[in-house]
Amino acid sequence: MFGFTRYYLSDTSCQMTDLLPVVVVHGGAGIIPKERLQLSISGVCAAVRTGYAILKGGGSSMDAVVETVIQLENNPAFNAGCGSVLNVKGEVEMDAIVMDGKTLASGAVSAVRNIANPIQLARLVMDKTSHACLTAEGANQFARSMGIEEVPQESLITEYSRMRWRKNLAPDANPVESQMGKAGTVGAVAVDLEGNVACATSTGGMLNKMEGRVGDTPIIGSGGYADNQSGAVSTTGHGETIMKITLARLILFHMEQGRSVEDASDLGLACMQSRLGGLGGVVTVDPQGHWAARFSSKQMSWAAAQRDIMHYGLYTGEHFTQSIN
Amino acid sequence: MFGFTRYYLSDTSCQMTDLLPVVVVHGGAGIIPKERLQLSISGVCAAVRTGYAILKGGGSSMDAVVETVIQLENNPAFNAGCGSVLNVKGEVEMDAIVMDGKTLASGAVSAVRNIANPIQLARLVMDKTSHACLTAEGANQFARSMGIEEVPQESLITEYSRMRWRKNLAPDANPVESQMGKAGTVGAVAVDLEGNVACATSTGGMLNKMEGRVGDTPIIGSGGYADNQSGAVSTTGHGETIMKITLARLILFHMEQGRSVEDASDLGLACMQSRLGGLGGVVTVDPQGHWAARFSSKQMSWAAAQRDIMHYGLYTGEHFTQSIN
Repeated sequence: MFGFTRYYLSDTSCQMTDLLPVVVVHGGAGIIPKERLQLSISGVCAAVRTGYAILKGGGSSMDAVVETVIQLENNPAFNAGCGSVLNVKGEVEMDAIVMDGKTLASGAVSAVRNIANPIQLARLVMDKTSHACLTAEGANQFARSMGIEEVPQESLITEYSRMRWRKNLAPDANPVESQMGKAGTVGAVAVDLEGNVACATSTGGMLNKMEGRVGDTPIIGSGGYADNQSGAVSTTGHGETIMKITLARLILFHMEQGRSVEDASDLGLACMQSRLGGLGGVVTVDPQGHWAARFSSKQMSWAAAQRDIMHYGLYTGEHFTQSIN
Repeated sequence: MFGFTRYYLSDTSCQMTDLLPVVVVHGGAGIIPKERLQLSISGVCAAVRTGYAILKGGGSSMDAVVETVIQLENNPAFNAGCGSVLNVKGEVEMDAIVMDGKTLASGAVSAVRNIANPIQLARLVMDKTSHACLTAEGANQFARSMGIEEVPQESLITEYSRMRWRKNLAPDANPVESQMGKAGTVGAVAVDLEGNVACATSTGGMLNKMEGRVGDTPIIGSGGYADNQSGAVSTTGHGETIMKITLARLILFHMEQGRSVEDASDLGLACMQSRLGGLGGVVTVDPQGHWAARFSSKQMSWAAAQRDIMHYGLYTGEHFTQSIN
């Protein structure tokens, strides 16, 4: 027989529940412009279906998070792959990371160009090299050696990205402020039928960033972390602030000390806000299949799939459900 | 009056002690070839004097760790700055990070070329940009904009590095194995008279690495971390393994839970060894001025300066002292 049922003790009562498999997706935290709300929500819901179908078919959590993130990279509504924000020179440089909770193996790329799906390249770094991160031209060289097709930069740039870049070149512009107007970084966490956790995060980074700027996304422990002994986290928000507290790892330390996915996520985000004034969001799972989508920003588009039910939301406290079939 | 005296309760007795300022330095963990032992030890001892003089003069822990690491980068006996190992193409690509425990601010550069002192550039990323990490050509562009002189690659390459690179190109070579034959990454942690902690780590990375490979050194939480609420750590060892457990941050989590600098360092290194079979070393301080230099590898060249006494060693259990004046 393939797959098995997991049982757990909830906080309040003793019951048997089948929580696996599960996948949780985010499409960036911040303030999403009205005209993009529908695109963002429909995007994360479509992506989570992809990941869930893989898990239900017996696929690994790693396959699920990578395929989910590929779908979000291909969706121009998100700041990853096609739709990435532009750096100060008007160019696309992307960061991505994957991590496998079973082995603690991870792969990342930073400041990579002309690649449609950086998350796929990050996974190849993990699977096909003895390294954990390749950057810039070295990452592109590796892509070529793996037969990954390079795409014209223009194919990754949307009119929307170019408009925002131009706007931020104005002398009175405030690119940091205007970061909030964009559905950002994308990411996913999952637990498969075997109880293995994984995470994947991908981004075009920060609007009008300096050339070569590396944010939190490809940094292990900041943009994501996965460990079968505690769980998996993917983060989004102001990268430089997330890095200062190694947000993903911090949340998992709280879980190692017995906190729930929700409490641990909130503690991590609260630490980021109280010590540094930073806002962000996370999706978190534990190996038993408990999950959380939490954020301190005004909005985060997120979706989760578990027990054939899709969950999704955008504002704090919002939690819609619908049957997946 | 400048400066003040800190008092602490030791584990075993109630006493007043002046533990500040303190600086602790490492010159890489592994197996250091016999002919380089003396160079390595004299190098870390000279560097720790530099840092200690800054601290005694009322300088900040950040100034102390940066100047200490600059001295080690300039010393061709170490794998950082001049003396860096070569990548598979025979080129030098360097990584460095600094972190300020008072503000959690950090700066890093990865895969940077033609820079004599990457640690200085990492500090400029922290001080002069809104970012925390710049990579590859973007880091070099920033260096130029800051007036940092670029140096010919040849000036960073020693005969010893070139010899080892050539040897590892042989079909039967094992570059990973031979990493052990090199005093590696350099780093320092310090606490100044005001109780502020800081860390700095710099490296040429891994012998015969792929172009664009980024190791643990510039990764916040892996190559180093500093927080006035717990302490500071700088790490050395197999980068890809250090990253898997975010070694620096892991050690500080143990300290947040009440472990001593020594116990926390040993727990972090033991986790890396038991879960992943990886070896390495760390230097650790807490804000009160307790310090540790611990390693699971056969050797680590290290030195510390506190209360006008220099401490240093190379093998496990070795601990020599001499007066600094």
